[in-house]
Amino acid sequence: MTKKVLLLPGDGIGPEIVAEAEKVLKALNASEGLGLELSTANVGGAAIDASGVPLPDDTLAAAKAADAILLGAVGGPKWDTIDMAIRPEKGLLGLRSGLQLFGNLRPAILYPQLAGASTLKPEVVSGLDILIVRELTGGIYFGQPRGIRTLENGERQGYNTYVYSESEIRRIAKVAFEAAQKRNGKLCSVDKANVLEVTVLWREILDDMAKDYPEVELSHMYVDNAAMQLVKAPKQFDVMVTGNMFGDILSDAAAMLTGSIGMLPSASLDADGKGMYEPCHGSAPDIAGQGIANPLATILSAAMMLRYSLGLTDAADKIEKAVSAVLDQGLRTPDIYSEGTQKVGTAEMGDAVVAAL
Amino acid sequence: MTKKVLLLPGDGIGPEIVAEAEKVLKALNASEGLGLELSTANVGGAAIDASGVPLPDDTLAAAKAADAILLGAVGGPKWDTIDMAIRPEKGLLGLRSGLQLFGNLRPAILYPQLAGASTLKPEVVSGLDILIVRELTGGIYFGQPRGIRTLENGERQGYNTYVYSESEIRRIAKVAFEAAQKRNGKLCSVDKANVLEVTVLWREILDDMAKDYPEVELSHMYVDNAAMQLVKAPKQFDVMVTGNMFGDILSDAAAMLTGSIGMLPSASLDADGKGMYEPCHGSAPDIAGQGIANPLATILSAAMMLRYSLGLTDAADKIEKAVSAVLDQGLRTPDIYSEGTQKVGTAEMGDAVVAAL
Ligand SMILES: CC(C)[C@H](C(=O)O)[C@@H](O)C(=O)O
Ligand SMILES: CC(C)[C@H](C(=O)O)[C@@H](O)C(=O)O
Repeated sequence: MTKKVLLLPGDGIGPEIVAEAEKVLKALNASEGLGLELSTANVGGAAIDASGVPLPDDTLAAAKAADAILLGAVGGPKWDTIDMAIRPEKGLLGLRSGLQLFGNLRPAILYPQLAGASTLKPEVVSGLDILIVRELTGGIYFGQPRGIRTLENGERQGYNTYVYSESEIRRIAKVAFEAAQKRNGKLCSVDKANVLEVTVLWREILDDMAKDYPEVELSHMYVDNAAMQLVKAPKQFDVMVTGNMFGDILSDAAAMLTGSIGMLPSASLDADGKGMYEPCHGSAPDIAGQGIANPLATILSAAMMLRYSLGLTDAADKIEKAVSAVLDQGLRTPDIYSEGTQKVGTAEMGDAVVAAL
Repeated sequence: MTKKVLLLPGDGIGPEIVAEAEKVLKALNASEGLGLELSTANVGGAAIDASGVPLPDDTLAAAKAADAILLGAVGGPKWDTIDMAIRPEKGLLGLRSGLQLFGNLRPAILYPQLAGASTLKPEVVSGLDILIVRELTGGIYFGQPRGIRTLENGERQGYNTYVYSESEIRRIAKVAFEAAQKRNGKLCSVDKANVLEVTVLWREILDDMAKDYPEVELSHMYVDNAAMQLVKAPKQFDVMVTGNMFGDILSDAAAMLTGSIGMLPSASLDADGKGMYEPCHGSAPDIAGQGIANPLATILSAAMMLRYSLGLTDAADKIEKAVSAVLDQGLRTPDIYSEGTQKVGTAEMGDAVVAAL
């Protein structure tokens, strides 16, 4: 049975890092007979340059037809002045919403080999292993009405709508409760229920669902406190669940606690487990084209893809072990380099992972 | 000329810490003849308990009549199940909006005596001195429409509105540009202009105003990246300006970088410089009534009040020097205690500051 994988390299360092993940997938496909069928399409700025829109119809169609998607990154200064309706980011948001990828899993894990890369003291972050579950197709990212209007007094006013329905909250909460069940049984839901009505509903639904997961210990935390606690004592968290906007902010803060955001994969899943996988970091236009970007987050995203969407657990394990092995060998791209290790480029790192498979 | 100062102790540790600030103000008032006239009123949970509402009319009237206000903190689990419309937080929000205190100044400063208290590595935070300017009377905190409604299909939906008009953006930007002028001339505006239209307008207005402040270097950063950069390299920032919700999150994260949030004051100012001053930390119900809370953030808030709203610069300097002196003496409340220093309680700390004046 063939499994269709769509590669969406995107912008900035996207093409370089996806190329390395592709090497790894091809090598495994050949040696293990995984039956992967890889194809590539345009999204983001690359698609704007090629065809004028950030998410061409045939890219969306290919994504819908695929069993899983591996994305690099989108966006960059080149397209920053374009009208918001057709910016590279709309390609990413269009994929998320078009495929109903509402469940975003963002692990923040400290690799023991890279402990020194964190700006936090070792005792605060050693062994850190948080999973942030972020709602990805609702909230203020997609809420209507939105726009910029002119008021009667002649001045302009910008507005967006933060909105969640019960069913949207239930389906993301289910993902989070189930993740907590498989992990350490602790779920912290993040809201601003002392100010925002939409999160009062959020909190109520979470409390209601907690009855169905007696083995999961649910707690609630205001978003400002959560941002503080991540800095103060991040190891108190197991799984965190929150809406689209708070999740965007907190998952990036959590990723940065590890000091090695270039290592962190993420998954965006629909109700059936079909998903899009991408590194947590962005398109890093400042270092694009130099062959120095870290491909490991993308390679680990490919492993997540094999595990969660394609049921290829053994192959996923192999990739993760290979990544650990190259770290043990002391190979480091510049973003994770420290004295006494060996600096390598994007392609060398990819080749090393293939060799370690 | 007398200057009317309204004290609003509020909830949790509020009464304990405001009592120490009151001691300090009374001592200075006597020795320096500042002409301060102190009075006290109820707000938050304390007001709910006394009169059923979080912001009684006579408290609001007293606040309007005062030249400056010193607040402790509001809220606590006792009132967490009350309907949102009359929760303790509404008292605070009602004061902010009733007095049009739109300009919230939240410094994140690392006290050299307390460098060890940070969870970040010393080289990352030593000398840290950021000022976060947060818009405080608009944005999603106050936007209409808001609430929880039932959809046609029978399910409930929660919604809030994130809204800013041009003039609201201009007046907070002015505060931020002027603060940057007086500091190191760097202003970073935080938005999510790649997704939210309201912040596209925000960014446009900031760019427009930058022309009037040629000596200030304006940059823009997405909120997710700002959360990361605060963890990665906080010393890159001088002044940051952002809306109400992002400011709530980022200012708490920034405060926690210092490891000594019990030391950080804040000011909330109207267009004429009249203001309400309060510690950055909350009501800490878990340690309320034990006499161990750190009163220094409140005492430093009183100093900020003398400086910014009452024009008593010398008196403000005296308080700040006294606080520095007690730290040099090695006195520490439990939240900032480390080996080799002397643990003291709330009242002892207040007395020590009075003695050092
Ligand atoms: C590029 C941007 C639209 C996106 C988001 O805000 O969701 C990114 O920051 C992310 O977190 O994947
Ligand atoms: C208590 C709460 C309403 C308040 C806020 O969110 O503004 C607090 O967190 C703050 O930052 O002063």
